[in-house]
Amino acid sequence: MAQGLLIIVSGPSGVGKGTICKELVERRPNLKVSISCTTRERRRNEEEGVHYFYKTEEEFNRMVMEGQLLEHAYVHGHQYGTPKAYVVDMLEKGYDVLLEIDVQGSIAAMKSYPDAVTVFVLPPDRDQLRERLQNRATETPEQIALRLRNAELELFMVKEYQYCVINDKLEDAVHDVEAILDAEHCKVSRGAQGAAGL
Amino acid sequence: MAQGLLIIVSGPSGVGKGTICKELVERRPNLKVSISCTTRERRRNEEEGVHYFYKTEEEFNRMVMEGQLLEHAYVHGHQYGTPKAYVVDMLEKGYDVLLEIDVQGSIAAMKSYPDAVTVFVLPPDRDQLRERLQNRATETPEQIALRLRNAELELFMVKEYQYCVINDKLEDAVHDVEAILDAEHCKVSRGAQGAAGL
Repeated sequence: MAQGLLIIVSGPSGVGKGTICKELVERRPNLKVSISCTTRERRRNEEEGVHYFYKTEEEFNRMVMEGQLLEHAYVHGHQYGTPKAYVVDMLEKGYDVLLEIDVQGSIAAMKSYPDAVTVFVLPPDRDQLRERLQNRATETPEQIALRLRNAELELFMVKEYQYCVINDKLEDAVHDVEAILDAEHCKVSRGAQGAAGL
Repeated sequence: MAQGLLIIVSGPSGVGKGTICKELVERRPNLKVSISCTTRERRRNEEEGVHYFYKTEEEFNRMVMEGQLLEHAYVHGHQYGTPKAYVVDMLEKGYDVLLEIDVQGSIAAMKSYPDAVTVFVLPPDRDQLRERLQNRATETPEQIALRLRNAELELFMVKEYQYCVINDKLEDAVHDVEAILDAEHCKVSRGAQGAAGL
C-alpha cells in the first residue's frame, strides 16, 4: 500500500480553517486528524488517544528534548504538541493525516516534516476576515484587536506554503483541498507510478 | 483575470490518453485544446484554425527557424507542430490549454514551456497496454510489434513528468487530471494568492 500524505492546513485565525477541515474529514474516510499531546488535564468527556494524548510536564519535556514532536507550543499555561510517531504510524498504514494548526506551529511542522503538503487558507478579502473576527462574541475588544493585527501579519506568510485556498464558499474551498490531496497522490516525485508496477 | 495553465498530457500509444482528453474538454469549458500547424492539405470537412492551422512548407520551416513552435515533428511525409502564439494567447485570456501529444513531442514541449503542468498516462499494468495495442484492427502485426516495443520504452519516461495518472477506469483518470488542474491553480508559486488581493 502506498504511503499516505501529511497535509498541513493553516491560515490566520478567523479564516474558517476549522470548518474546512471538519468537512474534509467527514468526506474522506482515508483522512485522519493528527492527535496532539497536551499537559492539560483530561476533561470528563475526553478520551486518551482520541482527543489528545495526555502527558505530564516531565513526559512532555522529554518528548521535546528527544525530537518526538513535529511542533509544540505553550498556550494558556499548558503545553501542546504534535507527536511525530502517531503521524508516521498513520502515514505508513496508508492514511493521509491532517494537521490543522496556527501559522507559527505550521512553519515549525513543515520544517520537521519537509514532505508535508502545505495549504494556507485565505479570506476572500481582508474586510471579511475583519468581520469574522469582530463577530466572535466570546472575546474582548482588546483580544479582537490583537487577533486582527496578527491576522494581517499572518497573511503575508502565505508565501511559505505550497498551496493556498480561498475560503469564499465552503464547498469550493473543500473541493480545492481535496483536489490538492488527489493531485499530490499523482506526483511522480512521490512514486505514484508505483501503482502501475513501475 | 488569472493566467491559464498549459497542461501537457502524454503517455505511450494505446494507453487511452485521447479518450481522457476528450472527456476533459467536454467537462471543462475553461479548457481549450491546443491547435497544431500542419503542412498537409486541408480536408473537405476541416476548418482553418479549428482542426489545424494550414501552412506551406516554407511557412512551416520559417516558424521552426524563428522558434514559433513549442515542438514539431515529421509524420508520414507531413510536418506538424504546436504554435506557441496560439497557446500563449489562450493562456493570457485565462483559458487552460490542453496539449495531448506523444512522448517525444511532449519532452520537447516541456523544454520550450517549462511552466507547463505535465501528466503521463499509465496503463494499469503492462498486459493491458499490450492488449489494447493488439486489438487495433487497423494495423499490421509489424506495426503492432513496433508500437509495443516503443510503448515499453516510453513507460520509463514517466520520470520526466510531474504527475502520472493510471487509466484503469476512465472516470478516475479524468477525475485525477481535473484534480491536478484545480490543485495547480491553487499553487502559491503560480501567484494563486493574488485572487485574495495579496
